[in-house]
Amino acid sequence: MLDAAKCSWLDIRDAVASRPVLAFLAVGAVEQHGAHLPLLTDTVMANGVARRLAEAEAGFLLPPLAFGECWTTESFPGTISISPQTLKALVLDIGRSLKRTGVAGLVLVNGHFGNREPIGLAARALFSEHGLPVLCLDYPGLVETAEEICDSKPAAPHFYHADEVETAFMLALAPETVRMELAAPEYPVFPATFGQEPIELSSFNESGVFGDPRPATAEKGEIFLARITEQSRRAIAAFRKNHGIAEREMTV
Amino acid sequence: MLDAAKCSWLDIRDAVASRPVLAFLAVGAVEQHGAHLPLLTDTVMANGVARRLAEAEAGFLLPPLAFGECWTTESFPGTISISPQTLKALVLDIGRSLKRTGVAGLVLVNGHFGNREPIGLAARALFSEHGLPVLCLDYPGLVETAEEICDSKPAAPHFYHADEVETAFMLALAPETVRMELAAPEYPVFPATFGQEPIELSSFNESGVFGDPRPATAEKGEIFLARITEQSRRAIAAFRKNHGIAEREMTV
Amino acid sequence: MLDAAKCSWLDIRDAVASRPVLAFLAVGAVEQHGAHLPLLTDTVMANGVARRLAEAEAGFLLPPLAFGECWTTESFPGTISISPQTLKALVLDIGRSLKRTGVAGLVLVNGHFGNREPIGLAARALFSEHGLPVLCLDYPGLVETAEEICDSKPAAPHFYHADEVETAFMLALAPETVRMELAAPEYPVFPATFGQEPIELSSFNESGVFGDPRPATAEKGEIFLARITEQSRRAIAAFRKNHGIAEREMTV
Amino acid sequence: MLDAAKCSWLDIRDAVASRPVLAFLAVGAVEQHGAHLPLLTDTVMANGVARRLAEAEAGFLLPPLAFGECWTTESFPGTISISPQTLKALVLDIGRSLKRTGVAGLVLVNGHFGNREPIGLAARALFSEHGLPVLCLDYPGLVETAEEICDSKPAAPHFYHADEVETAFMLALAPETVRMELAAPEYPVFPATFGQEPIELSSFNESGVFGDPRPATAEKGEIFLARITEQSRRAIAAFRKNHGIAEREMTV
Amino acid sequence: MLDAAKCSWLDIRDAVASRPVLAFLAVGAVEQHGAHLPLLTDTVMANGVARRLAEAEAGFLLPPLAFGECWTTESFPGTISISPQTLKALVLDIGRSLKRTGVAGLVLVNGHFGNREPIGLAARALFSEHGLPVLCLDYPGLVETAEEICDSKPAAPHFYHADEVETAFMLALAPETVRMELAAPEYPVFPATFGQEPIELSSFNESGVFGDPRPATAEKGEIFLARITEQSRRAIAAFRKNHGIAEREMTV
Amino acid sequence: MLDAAKCSWLDIRDAVASRPVLAFLAVGAVEQHGAHLPLLTDTVMANGVARRLAEAEAGFLLPPLAFGECWTTESFPGTISISPQTLKALVLDIGRSLKRTGVAGLVLVNGHFGNREPIGLAARALFSEHGLPVLCLDYPGLVETAEEICDSKPAAPHFYHADEVETAFMLALAPETVRMELAAPEYPVFPATFGQEPIELSSFNESGVFGDPRPATAEKGEIFLARITEQSRRAIAAFRKNHGIAEREMTV
Repeated sequence: MLDAAKCSWLDIRDAVASRPVLAFLAVGAVEQHGAHLPLLTDTVMANGVARRLAEAEAGFLLPPLAFGECWTTESFPGTISISPQTLKALVLDIGRSLKRTGVAGLVLVNGHFGNREPIGLAARALFSEHGLPVLCLDYPGLVETAEEICDSKPAAPHFYHADEVETAFMLALAPETVRMELAAPEYPVFPATFGQEPIELSSFNESGVFGDPRPATAEKGEIFLARITEQSRRAIAAFRKNHGIAEREMTV
Repeated sequence: MLDAAKCSWLDIRDAVASRPVLAFLAVGAVEQHGAHLPLLTDTVMANGVARRLAEAEAGFLLPPLAFGECWTTESFPGTISISPQTLKALVLDIGRSLKRTGVAGLVLVNGHFGNREPIGLAARALFSEHGLPVLCLDYPGLVETAEEICDSKPAAPHFYHADEVETAFMLALAPETVRMELAAPEYPVFPATFGQEPIELSSFNESGVFGDPRPATAEKGEIFLARITEQSRRAIAAFRKNHGIAEREMTV
Repeated sequence: MLDAAKCSWLDIRDAVASRPVLAFLAVGAVEQHGAHLPLLTDTVMANGVARRLAEAEAGFLLPPLAFGECWTTESFPGTISISPQTLKALVLDIGRSLKRTGVAGLVLVNGHFGNREPIGLAARALFSEHGLPVLCLDYPGLVETAEEICDSKPAAPHFYHADEVETAFMLALAPETVRMELAAPEYPVFPATFGQEPIELSSFNESGVFGDPRPATAEKGEIFLARITEQSRRAIAAFRKNHGIAEREMTV
Repeated sequence: MLDAAKCSWLDIRDAVASRPVLAFLAVGAVEQHGAHLPLLTDTVMANGVARRLAEAEAGFLLPPLAFGECWTTESFPGTISISPQTLKALVLDIGRSLKRTGVAGLVLVNGHFGNREPIGLAARALFSEHGLPVLCLDYPGLVETAEEICDSKPAAPHFYHADEVETAFMLALAPETVRMELAAPEYPVFPATFGQEPIELSSFNESGVFGDPRPATAEKGEIFLARITEQSRRAIAAFRKNHGIAEREMTV
Repeated sequence: MLDAAKCSWLDIRDAVASRPVLAFLAVGAVEQHGAHLPLLTDTVMANGVARRLAEAEAGFLLPPLAFGECWTTESFPGTISISPQTLKALVLDIGRSLKRTGVAGLVLVNGHFGNREPIGLAARALFSEHGLPVLCLDYPGLVETAEEICDSKPAAPHFYHADEVETAFMLALAPETVRMELAAPEYPVFPATFGQEPIELSSFNESGVFGDPRPATAEKGEIFLARITEQSRRAIAAFRKNHGIAEREMTV
Repeated sequence: MLDAAKCSWLDIRDAVASRPVLAFLAVGAVEQHGAHLPLLTDTVMANGVARRLAEAEAGFLLPPLAFGECWTTESFPGTISISPQTLKALVLDIGRSLKRTGVAGLVLVNGHFGNREPIGLAARALFSEHGLPVLCLDYPGLVETAEEICDSKPAAPHFYHADEVETAFMLALAPETVRMELAAPEYPVFPATFGQEPIELSSFNESGVFGDPRPATAEKGEIFLARITEQSRRAIAAFRKNHGIAEREMTV
């Protein structure tokens, strides 16, 4: 793996000269995650997955984008939200530099729902206007795994926030930042027009938790990480094939 | 200290409700730093200072902005540059969220020359249009300390890049990422119009090093960190005074 | 109903002065829909629903936005795509004028997938910055109805394009524009990374049809229209309740 | 004629493959037009002309842009105005897609004064940056015809709004939307600085009518349509000649 | 008169504190004007008028905007054109500063056709969003005076460029920059679609002259200046009345 | 010299056809300069230097950009500030036109600190995206000359505003606009965080003067002009060499 925190520009130069290199970029958020999880939860989770993928794929691991688009939770103190335009511009700029650097493709590991569209639009522009293939991963396999191994129900279908799922991830990745003694469930009543009009989550949720984090364990977190890594690698294999990006052993 | 990697939204809510809280944000870069330093050097350095300041000031430490404006080194593979507009927008968005969250002011710790103007413009807008005081620190005291403790000369006045100064910082902050065996000096000849027209550094520098990194030691790095922290705290004290932001003991 | 094609400014002035008025705006597309359906299919469908809702709710029916965001089908001749930024700006401008005119809320009836995010972002800005409540309807009840009454399977889950569903709508709304003799099925093989990276539909679909349009009938189209209208009215009732927009009889 | 409401993408594909095709796009407005004309008047008029031209020229008739730039009448309820920037962006996006689709040129039929400059700027960009010739028609021949056949005087030179001219058009094109029993004259006193500073029309006009709509008849409307169509076709012939766009018989 | 080239900030402070002050800003161009007139012709002319008005009205004379929007003559070497967006932004920024400075209104003296719309849009925004009244003068009375005193005909109705009219102005304002020995007539044939599609003037004009500059004299120029000044002052009087901006004697 | 105020488009056409021509553009400001200097001081100074350089280099002298970026002095009446974005756009547009006109390079003579970054960014874009070399001169040699010939000290290192330096320039260039009888010194106390946070100068300076203008003389102004011209020409010589722009005698 070519970790930006450790490697030099010569490492990158030599790698891209000798084989097709994929870059990996986690996109997270600084966002409320209840009383028991830190603000950086989404960033830690996404970067945890990105790191495993970069290792497995001998890729170039960039530092995560720690700030995400969090309009829906802005009224919780501590949530720091950036606009979709800013997030899109950021991914676009990074992608253009990666293209110039010579990487063969970019894999975005997204850890926050609000980031999806902005990074999707950036991916489209990078591919169609700048010729850089971009794969956007949103934890493939998470839903199926949650249905299989979780002991609690999600607050809504496909909605995981500060619940058993995310808490399990954090217990596996950064247990020192989890305060299980503060973990408490909340199953809010969603407004009838949820998803159809702009609604801040604080208007119907008090604690920031959606579901029940208490049954979370580090073991479950590891299962999530393993499954998502596996599913992601399948997507990456298809992505490589689509764009003729050969997979080779890393020599450095 | 309120570290976004560890604290919850309730910690932030309670802190801002009980005392004036300053937020601390490092702004770094992913940029070539010669053969012996990692791409993330500027980010690691700025975040090292920001963390010390947040601790000393009982502030809210945000995750660093790891990507900076690096037009001048874009042609070195591995440098990932974002545009000044994107960087300005990013700081503006973050500042607006901080204002909404209730912090009393924002301290930017900048680790890269190209970031100065974009973050200065964001600071201006945040202060004059959004009422958030913003202090921009560019390693106060660094020049004087370098003149005092360095054994090598800088490649140009006030120009420190992958040299004794930065290498010393990194030996103090992240020694495992420094490869001193690859450290080698380069004193390039600057073009006569340097600073007067747009010039990519690669047009007159080969290794990415400006100066001589070899005399660097972790001890010197610690001296830099201590001096800069001290000078920065003086600036913060004046900043607090300008805006009536009382300094109180952190209770949590 | 206050139809912009028929009513005068005095009709609008008097209506908004006497009761809370909702505006209805269909958002469609000019996009390929196989050999048997016209380019305007999405616009005709969305406007058909919007008209029924405006009638039922005694609302202000605006002319439809006929052009939508169609990046994925741009390589089919005849598809005319506008950028997400342009679509968002258009809805924002219209909403601001509606606010000034005095309407109580805006109901967007969307007929094309690519429009979702841009109009969602416009809705957010209109509500949070301009105080205009906006409801975004994406054919509520369509999926369930399709599963119940269709004789063919969709080409992919929740993916309806030039198939039995859309053809049924058009047979009910504009039968003179449907050429059933040209209707032919296509069940393309979706790429493994579909939904994860930007992919033009023409790269794996030849005819523009996704599924089998042949079993479509006008009767099925009427059932869709009736169910969607009913489900939409439920959402509108909740939306009215959220924002205190009373429902009254139209007097003009 | 290739009407987007009726033809398929294959019709467009085949047409552009066999001969040079011109696209026709009406640009109208949702704007107050006195007590007797509907809000959509400008759109109906412009589209009436565009349809006749598309038929005569065997062109591709797009759905009209129904919303225009109406700053001057924004304070009349029911007027829905979009900004010049948005209108320009909309025409630009559409033109780019038309270029990709393979049309030989675009003819804009403008029905509202405020639209002139934005669509003129879009035309310039489409021609000089994207290579798409664009002709902007503002009812050529209207002034001369009005002087010849109208029984009332305009409220100001070259100023026709909800008067005999526009009412005649509407009686010819959409008589069911005209309420002649409400038609009443108004000859407002124009401010001395009209045209020299931004002035909302409502500051000196009460009814929304400028002139006297009462002498309007459908016959006069037909004469306007015939003359304008004829003059427009002359301009189109010159436009075709300028750009080498041959006129051929439509075979489908 | 408060001439920015001569007065200090204290002069401005005292003037706006004691009476309503109008600011005067000429908007010109750097554009080809045939063989006998300098590139700065439009700027010199507009500033000549602005200076006379500022003197007569005891106003604040700003330095002229010397660069204008000249798309149509860009292919003549020496024409320097700025985009309509840039010109609009420039006038907007200046207007905002003038509002803050305390002036009562802004009078724009435009000397170039292409500037009309951008400065008109800026005027609208300044008035409706920032509360600064703005009057846009386009040489009122010029057409009538030309018809009365010129010995040559214009190349097209209301079209004056490097002809008798402009040459007369320049002979009155800056005779040392006029080379009458190079003045020669050109009456180009305008394309049939002129005004209906984007056309560069160089496509049908060779010398840059439109009409016949030879009969121009300084006396005629003085008549133009006198008449335009008179007509402009009438418009200014109406403008003052519209906005309650009293006219008082200048005391400084 | 090709002065835009005097030469025609044919002069420019012939010059660029026969030799490499540099364009010269002064960038100044309309800004408070104490009681004794006019608002246009920075523009007069920069244009004075630009004119000397254009003469010496047989260049194309454009009219100066008279408005600059003056956020820090906006609260002094009479200061008219434009945003950095507008200034950057203006220089970019002008540069693009110069490129089209055929000049070999652009020399910007900047007379105001706030303009530095915007014009530097424009220079970068013009060079890297449009292929126009741009040299940005900020009075090279000024600091050394001031240290050598001034009888007063600057208010802060490298800070010259309405002081002996600028007054000397103005006495040399436009003595009729200087009121020495009003010249008075002010040595304000700079805030501790000056340069680290956005601070309006009026918050700690009363008169607008920084330093002591009284010892200024026209002779000193001439020395400044001569030294800066000399140093600037050295930079231009290096700039010509960097880009292969030969220096030739002007024949016209």
